[in-house]
Amino acid sequence: MNYLAALKRPTLVINETICRRNIARMVDMAAGKDLLLRPHFKTHNSVVVGKWFRESGISAITVSSITMTTLFAEDDWNDITIAFPLNLRELEDINLLAERINLNLLIESETSINKLVEEMEFPVGFFIKVDTGYHRTGLAPDNYRLINSILKESEHNPLLSFKGFLTHAGHTYKARGKKEILEIHHRSIKIMEGLKLKYSENYPGLIISTGDTPSCSVADNFTGVDELRPGNFVYYDLMQERIGSCDYKDIGVAVACPVVAKHDDRQEIVIYGGTVHLSKEQLLDDEGKVIYGRIAEPADRGWTDPIDNVWVTALSQEHGIISSCNPEFFRRTNIGDILMILPVHSCLAANLLEDQIIV
Amino acid sequence: MNYLAALKRPTLVINETICRRNIARMVDMAAGKDLLLRPHFKTHNSVVVGKWFRESGISAITVSSITMTTLFAEDDWNDITIAFPLNLRELEDINLLAERINLNLLIESETSINKLVEEMEFPVGFFIKVDTGYHRTGLAPDNYRLINSILKESEHNPLLSFKGFLTHAGHTYKARGKKEILEIHHRSIKIMEGLKLKYSENYPGLIISTGDTPSCSVADNFTGVDELRPGNFVYYDLMQERIGSCDYKDIGVAVACPVVAKHDDRQEIVIYGGTVHLSKEQLLDDEGKVIYGRIAEPADRGWTDPIDNVWVTALSQEHGIISSCNPEFFRRTNIGDILMILPVHSCLAANLLEDQIIV
Repeated sequence: MNYLAALKRPTLVINETICRRNIARMVDMAAGKDLLLRPHFKTHNSVVVGKWFRESGISAITVSSITMTTLFAEDDWNDITIAFPLNLRELEDINLLAERINLNLLIESETSINKLVEEMEFPVGFFIKVDTGYHRTGLAPDNYRLINSILKESEHNPLLSFKGFLTHAGHTYKARGKKEILEIHHRSIKIMEGLKLKYSENYPGLIISTGDTPSCSVADNFTGVDELRPGNFVYYDLMQERIGSCDYKDIGVAVACPVVAKHDDRQEIVIYGGTVHLSKEQLLDDEGKVIYGRIAEPADRGWTDPIDNVWVTALSQEHGIISSCNPEFFRRTNIGDILMILPVHSCLAANLLEDQIIV
Repeated sequence: MNYLAALKRPTLVINETICRRNIARMVDMAAGKDLLLRPHFKTHNSVVVGKWFRESGISAITVSSITMTTLFAEDDWNDITIAFPLNLRELEDINLLAERINLNLLIESETSINKLVEEMEFPVGFFIKVDTGYHRTGLAPDNYRLINSILKESEHNPLLSFKGFLTHAGHTYKARGKKEILEIHHRSIKIMEGLKLKYSENYPGLIISTGDTPSCSVADNFTGVDELRPGNFVYYDLMQERIGSCDYKDIGVAVACPVVAKHDDRQEIVIYGGTVHLSKEQLLDDEGKVIYGRIAEPADRGWTDPIDNVWVTALSQEHGIISSCNPEFFRRTNIGDILMILPVHSCLAANLLEDQIIV
């Protein structure tokens, strides 16, 4: 527990053993099915964690912004898909990146493809983003008019190469349990397979890219799929545990927070660790109560299993309130101690915490 | 609207005119009642906005972390209260700061005062934090045993000087309308006045420090109070408008976000602007629907009033979904445009957005 001695402020503690195990499991799964694993780096957004992926044989990655693309391009990643609708206001930066690396963009409108045709000065790949039911972005899979129009517009431009169809079945995040995840996953890949069959004749090299963390964590059947882009699995979190993607023991990060106050009358502990550290992402516990994290205690090179009947139940900007129905835990916790908070959404906690240590 | 031309990514746009007006109004209110205004700088956490306060005559400030204290101490603020329970793991940094500036700390336990007595090497002031009903931190106002014990422990230490009692009536954030705010405010200051009367004989210089933004925005009676510490009022936000602290026209910041997709079938607009820009802080609209922001359009040196029947209704890490029941707005909004999002909680948006511009 030496790493805790110097710890002063809310800090993301990254357990390298767990994260490397999560990476290895996903790499093996993809290899076993002959799928390209193009992990999403938005979860960690860290060049150090990126190196763990590289050491596992990963060479192609996914990000969600130009800012992240620049960060990883500078760390010698040169095959990057920006899985976010093309932002027309960053075309200058996109050109600078396309000059240096293999870059893939997402297109879902005529406006965007027209602008790309006009402005690109270097070769880029593009995917057509398809909505298989999440209804966030993407065109409807039967909107052949729009698909054909996008393809036609790009056809005679030697700088633009059509890579295939891409989707994010993010509605798996609403699933509870493996069965629900698989139902969503199978509907989604079936739709994508239909597009592959329809367009492969004219575009024989096209690929199907999919891969939310829940599906990639539990599915076995990826018929028609060529590429997977899960991101969260490297860290996992309480939400993924709730969905059914992982076990508590797979969660690779915890937020170490100093205890700053205790209130015996209401069995509450106040930690230095609030919305600006954990994010306001919430989860309903089994009884329908809102929680912002579960609590573990520091252990040698990591942390314990989550403690029963103890939760982060309120957050303000810098404060977190831990409610305890566990008198023994309450008694042994002192002002000045460190508690380890398992976050609801690790991507957001990692984004918020500048202080990060690896154990 | 020139400032928008170069804008590429989600950016906090700070309207200097509105913010200076909000500052001036609070300064005038406090001066009119002969109260010390010690504004909370956690909302903006910006040395530039700090200068606007300085130009309005402010010389004493409040922050919520050692990190913020260091930032503002380096910008020549030398009278700072850290309105957060003493973090025993930062005593070394506190000593470094106490050597340079006038620093006030918050105490609410014997553990903390004992540690302070042991470790302080330079003079500091301290407030006893009192809970007047918010139930986040602070000791019960009738816990005289603990108050006396803290005072006794510090009494013979020449480095520790008792400044008075401090509270944060944060339960005003649950109020809806001026009447509810005032009820909470008056109960809270009554309690603090009681403590003042009880302890003034032995500590004649003690002061009462209070001041959440809702109370400071609408209350007229501050009997017994000496110091106000509101923070949010410099920017305000949708939550404050909902509580009844301000009008839409008082909101001093908006998050400028590029439009990246449009979905006619469901009248949805996708913006580059998600949880990592706006935070997941939510508000229920009049019909009980969860919203993460309201939408304005850019205008000369600022933005319009919020547009009717249009809201940010979903957020993921980088995406925001705008749902429109306003066909005219939907029609005139194009991919590549900038929309101005009025945030639910400006403190969190300001904390998240590295890109900030002043107009």
